[in-house]
Amino acid sequence: MNNEVTVGIDIGGTNSVAGVVDRTGKCLAKGSIDTRQYPEIEGFIEALASLVKKLISEAGVKYKVKGIGIGAPNGNCKRGSIENAPNLKWKGIIPLKELMQKYFNDIPILITNDANAAALGEQVYGNAKDLSDFIVITLGTGLGSGFITAGKLMCGHDGFAGELGHTIAVVDGRPCGCGRRGCLETYASATGITKTVIELLEIRNTESVLRNVLTEGIDAKKIHEAACLNDPIALEAFEFTGKLLGRKLADTVAITNPQAIFLFGGLANAGEYIFKPTRESMKKNMMNIFKDTCRLLPSGVDENNAAILGASALPWKAIIKDNLYLCPGHHI
Amino acid sequence: MNNEVTVGIDIGGTNSVAGVVDRTGKCLAKGSIDTRQYPEIEGFIEALASLVKKLISEAGVKYKVKGIGIGAPNGNCKRGSIENAPNLKWKGIIPLKELMQKYFNDIPILITNDANAAALGEQVYGNAKDLSDFIVITLGTGLGSGFITAGKLMCGHDGFAGELGHTIAVVDGRPCGCGRRGCLETYASATGITKTVIELLEIRNTESVLRNVLTEGIDAKKIHEAACLNDPIALEAFEFTGKLLGRKLADTVAITNPQAIFLFGGLANAGEYIFKPTRESMKKNMMNIFKDTCRLLPSGVDENNAAILGASALPWKAIIKDNLYLCPGHHI
Repeated sequence: MNNEVTVGIDIGGTNSVAGVVDRTGKCLAKGSIDTRQYPEIEGFIEALASLVKKLISEAGVKYKVKGIGIGAPNGNCKRGSIENAPNLKWKGIIPLKELMQKYFNDIPILITNDANAAALGEQVYGNAKDLSDFIVITLGTGLGSGFITAGKLMCGHDGFAGELGHTIAVVDGRPCGCGRRGCLETYASATGITKTVIELLEIRNTESVLRNVLTEGIDAKKIHEAACLNDPIALEAFEFTGKLLGRKLADTVAITNPQAIFLFGGLANAGEYIFKPTRESMKKNMMNIFKDTCRLLPSGVDENNAAILGASALPWKAIIKDNLYLCPGHHI
Repeated sequence: MNNEVTVGIDIGGTNSVAGVVDRTGKCLAKGSIDTRQYPEIEGFIEALASLVKKLISEAGVKYKVKGIGIGAPNGNCKRGSIENAPNLKWKGIIPLKELMQKYFNDIPILITNDANAAALGEQVYGNAKDLSDFIVITLGTGLGSGFITAGKLMCGHDGFAGELGHTIAVVDGRPCGCGRRGCLETYASATGITKTVIELLEIRNTESVLRNVLTEGIDAKKIHEAACLNDPIALEAFEFTGKLLGRKLADTVAITNPQAIFLFGGLANAGEYIFKPTRESMKKNMMNIFKDTCRLLPSGVDENNAAILGASALPWKAIIKDNLYLCPGHHI
């Protein structure tokens, strides 16, 4: 199996990246295209297929490509499609697998969304190699979540399971891009904590280095840097974010009873500033029978290649049958 | 397979019932013992085993018993145990499977909790025969829930998945038996709606037939009867209960993406009085991609034998391998 590889592709609103990855998670070749340059999906697919063929050739003839995995916003793992993704130009239902398959008719192609890809990446290459029941939470612009239960990705009936970011954290709370109010991702995400800081700067008189930053310039990284300087607004924002996130994670543990939850992405890079209040709130809100059953952990996947690795894990899951399975009804 | 049967046992705080059930859900023999008469687990198991042997004999020699399924409060599907059940006299961890197996050493014995048994009953005999992803919610003294995802019972890492009743519906809300506050079951259960009526009678001046009932005498059945008379307090209580339940069900749909949710038990018997406000609240709180994907339905399992049927479904799941599976790590 040493010369077997998979291809991982991550489609983003700005850039789309692809890489050829071996079973250990080593990225043998990678590249990207500018998603915005392709107003029509057909042109995008053509450019993406060319990139993938170039990367396979770069990796070398001795490697056999076992499958192509694609992570995409609103990627549907059951139907192999992208469905009404708000941040992509191509509207409606895009039959991504079908379109790509024309260029690679002898290679299995699998699609899922970004957060599910992150969960699979954690299981195949990261800190969840020996775990059967866990959740990966991606804390970026939004909050994504991928659930592995009994070793398998939980897809749900329509392939849309794992929308933890769109459960209600605060009744009638902040407006969300999904059209409702109070969704968890409006609080617990890089965007959410930025909103919290802006609100706190308005209602608190406390001095803060963040006051010197223009409102438009505040982001999760700057809030983290301010927290490292013991900035009271930054520290309060992390406390507040962790409190809401931990409460919803305790609820989630009561539903799926995982052994671990991994935090990943922009906001998770703040380390203990976000982990500590989240862990404390989880503990406070956790039902007794679940106390100390679920660890809150950092991701073990190299962040620089995480999107490629997550997507590339999808075909490995189809290949490694011993303890990793695809959910029934999956499109392979 | 016509002469194959399973035994279903439901252990309750007051009574424990058992029955011999064929593949179609016909109960060929049934009986019960008074749980409270047995302060020691060993005496209880002896009496239960005698009852089961008597029932098997009553059903007739032509039947072959393929397995025994037991539904119990805090029944653990992975460890085959009852663990710290608050309403049972036997404290700590009871190795139920092991104790029963001594009396039936050639018959597979499987344990789960009441709500998981209800979900399996719905799948094997009820309205979920053709469904792969659904939830059964039992609205009795508490709120139990059993999740079937991709055809299988979701057990979680420790066998305790499906505690939807102990997710937070109201932050800092009503005290719950679990030691926390605001759990969904303190609102959406037969006990919960009774509390709501008592609270409403205090704060509203409205006339109500429920004012004539002593506080101690109000229960879900009387609230249903009052609602049938258009009693404003009863109607408001159902509205309020449905509103909270529907909101949490919308959250749950975002996590597991089921195709149906079944309501079962005391409170569910109020029919549209509880279904209508719950359905409306689910719809109002549902993220767009899930709109109209999940139906809210009544159970199709005969309520008189539901506990026996649910438990008896557990061994059938182990036998019928085509589209019904046990979760990996299950103790059979």
